[in-house]
Amino acid sequence: MSSVGPEIERLIALLAKLPGLGPRSARRAALSLLKRREQLLLPLMDALTAAADQVVACRICGALDTRDPCAVCADLERDLSLICVVEEVGALWAMERAGAYRGRYHVLGGLLSVLDGVGPEALRVASLTERARDGTVKEVILALPATVDGQTTAHYLADRLAGTGVAVTMLARGVPVGGELDWLDDGTIAQALRARRPA
Amino acid sequence: MSSVGPEIERLIALLAKLPGLGPRSARRAALSLLKRREQLLLPLMDALTAAADQVVACRICGALDTRDPCAVCADLERDLSLICVVEEVGALWAMERAGAYRGRYHVLGGLLSVLDGVGPEALRVASLTERARDGTVKEVILALPATVDGQTTAHYLADRLAGTGVAVTMLARGVPVGGELDWLDDGTIAQALRARRPA
Repeated sequence: MSSVGPEIERLIALLAKLPGLGPRSARRAALSLLKRREQLLLPLMDALTAAADQVVACRICGALDTRDPCAVCADLERDLSLICVVEEVGALWAMERAGAYRGRYHVLGGLLSVLDGVGPEALRVASLTERARDGTVKEVILALPATVDGQTTAHYLADRLAGTGVAVTMLARGVPVGGELDWLDDGTIAQALRARRPA
Repeated sequence: MSSVGPEIERLIALLAKLPGLGPRSARRAALSLLKRREQLLLPLMDALTAAADQVVACRICGALDTRDPCAVCADLERDLSLICVVEEVGALWAMERAGAYRGRYHVLGGLLSVLDGVGPEALRVASLTERARDGTVKEVILALPATVDGQTTAHYLADRLAGTGVAVTMLARGVPVGGELDWLDDGTIAQALRARRPA
């Protein structure tokens, strides 16, 4: 692309690193930014600056917020006896959107993975067991993905938390809302069948 | 999303305005930026600043570049007898990537549209006819989209350029490279048949 200056090339290359944007959509995004300078480019610059300057990891749960402790941990209306363990902040946001949980969180920062060489020391495990022992917490809910690494991590955490006296639970498995049996994988159907309950 | 601070919310909202990113992928992109502060967030801030400060529209063809005239118009190796008319800078970049064209460009800045109320005065038409009359230009290639508005605009431009003495051509229509007949729309097949040529 000899006709595109190095500054635009660089902007495109960086946009292409965002999840969800490939090289083609990064070009479209760059073009959209350049054409909408006042409405989009300058506001995005400001928003990135504000995020870079102000967003920090919560010292209690590890979530990202402009406050430390984060809005959830600082909220005394929350049920302090519950901790929901999530892989990443994105999962925390998803739980909050669902609006069905009123306890606190603990962001692990990843999953145990033999293949990727991720051990417990790379995750926020020590601070989780510490929180579980503080006397207030009654239940730790493992909201980890239903993948091999997610389940390995869940089993490991259940072991580590076994001596603390708190209940350790995990999200139910089953047919998702709107899920048609035709389109579900066999594993989900089998799990939903095993976990069947009175109608 | 009560647990997400207003700064992060604003960043997500702005990212969601980029073409190709919806609300969900904008959240993932924001998270990726916040987690990769040094590698992604700060470099993107710099790239946006550089683009905002340095990228301008070329006074000759209307393309976006850090130079004015742009790299294409400043390149004396280019064939000055050819002008390729494109709707937007994105189409110019696509032509350059194809690497099959060595002339100059003219970015219209849109298409005529009765529905959207876009008339010739909103496009860079006057400067196109002026360039076509300069004595050097021999051919104007209309590389406009094969849509109703694209074709309306092409016919209008062909009319406007009729008196200038330059040849006015348009891109060929036909089966795209790799195109299987099974998957092509009827219009493309009909046009490819009408424009058939000796094998």
